[in-house]
Amino acid sequence: MAPHRVVIIGGGFGGLHAAQALARAPVEVTLVDRRNFHLFQPLLYQVATGGLSPANIAAPLRSIFQRRRNVRVLLGEVTNVDLARRRVMLSDGELSYDSLIVATGSHQNYFGNDQWREQAPPLKTIEDATEIRSRVLTAFETAERESDPVRRAEWLTFVVVGAGPTGVELAGALAELCRHTLRQDFRAIEPDHAKVLLVDALPRVLPGYPEDLSAKAQRQLEQIGVTVETGRMVTDVASDHVRLKRDGDEQDAEETVATRTVLWCAGVQASRLGPRLAEQAGVEADRAGRVPVDEYLHPGEHAEVYVVGDLARREEQGSPLPGVAQVAIQQGKYAARSILARLRGEQPVPFRYRDLGSMATIGRNRAVALMGRWRLSGYFAWLAWLLVHLMKMVRFENRVLVFIQWAWLYTTWNRSARLVTGQRLPLPLEQREESDRLSRREAEAQAEPVEPGR
Amino acid sequence: MAPHRVVIIGGGFGGLHAAQALARAPVEVTLVDRRNFHLFQPLLYQVATGGLSPANIAAPLRSIFQRRRNVRVLLGEVTNVDLARRRVMLSDGELSYDSLIVATGSHQNYFGNDQWREQAPPLKTIEDATEIRSRVLTAFETAERESDPVRRAEWLTFVVVGAGPTGVELAGALAELCRHTLRQDFRAIEPDHAKVLLVDALPRVLPGYPEDLSAKAQRQLEQIGVTVETGRMVTDVASDHVRLKRDGDEQDAEETVATRTVLWCAGVQASRLGPRLAEQAGVEADRAGRVPVDEYLHPGEHAEVYVVGDLARREEQGSPLPGVAQVAIQQGKYAARSILARLRGEQPVPFRYRDLGSMATIGRNRAVALMGRWRLSGYFAWLAWLLVHLMKMVRFENRVLVFIQWAWLYTTWNRSARLVTGQRLPLPLEQREESDRLSRREAEAQAEPVEPGR
Repeated sequence: MAPHRVVIIGGGFGGLHAAQALARAPVEVTLVDRRNFHLFQPLLYQVATGGLSPANIAAPLRSIFQRRRNVRVLLGEVTNVDLARRRVMLSDGELSYDSLIVATGSHQNYFGNDQWREQAPPLKTIEDATEIRSRVLTAFETAERESDPVRRAEWLTFVVVGAGPTGVELAGALAELCRHTLRQDFRAIEPDHAKVLLVDALPRVLPGYPEDLSAKAQRQLEQIGVTVETGRMVTDVASDHVRLKRDGDEQDAEETVATRTVLWCAGVQASRLGPRLAEQAGVEADRAGRVPVDEYLHPGEHAEVYVVGDLARREEQGSPLPGVAQVAIQQGKYAARSILARLRGEQPVPFRYRDLGSMATIGRNRAVALMGRWRLSGYFAWLAWLLVHLMKMVRFENRVLVFIQWAWLYTTWNRSARLVTGQRLPLPLEQREESDRLSRREAEAQAEPVEPGR
Repeated sequence: MAPHRVVIIGGGFGGLHAAQALARAPVEVTLVDRRNFHLFQPLLYQVATGGLSPANIAAPLRSIFQRRRNVRVLLGEVTNVDLARRRVMLSDGELSYDSLIVATGSHQNYFGNDQWREQAPPLKTIEDATEIRSRVLTAFETAERESDPVRRAEWLTFVVVGAGPTGVELAGALAELCRHTLRQDFRAIEPDHAKVLLVDALPRVLPGYPEDLSAKAQRQLEQIGVTVETGRMVTDVASDHVRLKRDGDEQDAEETVATRTVLWCAGVQASRLGPRLAEQAGVEADRAGRVPVDEYLHPGEHAEVYVVGDLARREEQGSPLPGVAQVAIQQGKYAARSILARLRGEQPVPFRYRDLGSMATIGRNRAVALMGRWRLSGYFAWLAWLLVHLMKMVRFENRVLVFIQWAWLYTTWNRSARLVTGQRLPLPLEQREESDRLSRREAEAQAEPVEPGR
């Protein structure tokens, strides 16, 4: 008898843990991903702020499954699935399956304003993180050379949109970068006078947390120099400003913030596979593109298909499970166990999410954590965050390297990986020229010698 | 009295050591570079083969000079210098100087065949290294999915052009990547059957070394599976082959090597500033664009200008000094000392290069080293190489991180930073389609399902 073929789409938290749970089981697993590595997304903001290197938070998929001979890794782009024929379509071929686990996750959601993406990059991939790192560092370099105080202030204003965990962590790390790491680096500007603004349309930061923890998180953010503006919706993003509107304000009550750097951490959209899969399964994807699944994580009647992680919409006690790593991990493991149970002829038990708690770090010695009935904030929450994140990394080597770099950062405030790479160099002059606020005369003035004023 | 203004162009070995030697001296130093970091180029090949992360071999210039208040770092692109007016022209401004140190180094030389660059990338920058890393790893991924044995062999053939230290080290690291790191990673291909070819037009590898060390290096390369082809000139590079001609062969005696990955480590060209500077100084740049300097490292009559490192051509005992880090470091320090001596009204002594030796690593436990009259090869040369390179790194943190990763690599053979990043993903299908060797029918056959053959 031919072995049972399991295809897993996506090597994020859901897909990776499903594949690991199926390793050495009597099935043939094919794990398909566009990338050759698993990414530990919760620490991506540390790459974006120069604290860690990309390889520190990535683990090559092939090295994870090197000795799991029943797992095959395939680098490929999945374009669609055919539930009727039980096939996965790749950009250059097809795969047949007996069981399918779909774990393609989500990308950033611009809520219909995809034109903002260019000015306000997201933080979902390694490339996003190094792009943000280059933008932030180049903003300081440009400010250092800018003699006009108004434009200098624009370059030293950083706006983070979205005050969920990623936005909070990114804003906190940016504030520490300005106030400590870069403090002595420049001669003409004072980076600790830079402004970090954290904006959200909802009335409080970390809306998924209890109100008292949100308040504590906001206070800790403010202590390290982040300006928190909640209840404000972004209505426009341009190369030199963002426009904000207070909830309920009239159109003309909008506020304009002059800034050259906007970072987008507001909301996610399920991957494109979601709606296609939902349609074939006869269910309706929700507004974020997520596929509704039953208590066995199946979409519609397809008991051989599992949808897990950010791509799935599963409600428990009336509200959808959050898009966090723990949900994806537990669902991935569940799908694997369920497949094996069915192969043994057993009836799987329904999926239940076990909330192990959640935590967000704000800065050195500052974090909030929610574990069951325990609510921590400050130093002990930060210590818990540190330990949990170190232990959750897939590869032991990465744990060691990250630990050393954290110890270093803690002792010296130095973020060693603050490299400007890619095509942004030396200075984004085009951006200046594009600016519609620069009159011809100003542009000419700028072309004059920048001889250091002494 | 206004302080003496020293401008240093370039933050490589020469410029960095000049600036460090001038730190805290009674001069005002401006260090201009296009990049915001100093790059430890001798280890770039380890980034290209996934052993180290870019940040491990880079040190942010601003962090190096954070506490040296008389040194200002300027991120900018130098377009020219004006020796008569004592000014440095940037793409967006100018700088005046009293003393000038030019240390802009060199880039890869394609000897008039710049069109090869696309197919055969160089290894001079961080971006080059991550590009090569992506190409090499993607070649394995493509081979894994390729069913045609001829094309599969093309993807598993790697040609390194140039058998100087960089070419030798890159070829050795590639061979170890194939034979050890990736050996168990794939299911359809056997990476240890991959072919690594090291080609040079000169009759032996490491031509700057004594003949017996060259022979030992070649033997060690062959032991770890590198095919060495010396005395062969590259006459063509295309997307699916390189053409080689034996020295003295007729045109029709050329050999074609079918390969999808060619890496270019053959020869360097001084930066574009060289010829411009030489013309103004009334001297003639050599064929590689280097500026001839006198025994005080001045070009022509300009005693306020120093040219150091790869950009300078300085002959001692009838032959030009080699383009290695040690020459640049000693010349950079010399220029700094010379400026300070002149400020004190003393006459500087002429520059003399002190040869501290040279070494090249070939693989684990394998290297050659030349130190004075000592010639080492094998384990002790490798150990010496390891120690010297660890100690030469600018930042202590990098030394620790590199040491740990080397210890890890030594124990596990695992190269953790083997990430495919950038725009090359998922698979270079365009490259396949472009291939002129693919007939229409073959192309159609390829479009058929790639269902794993079991």
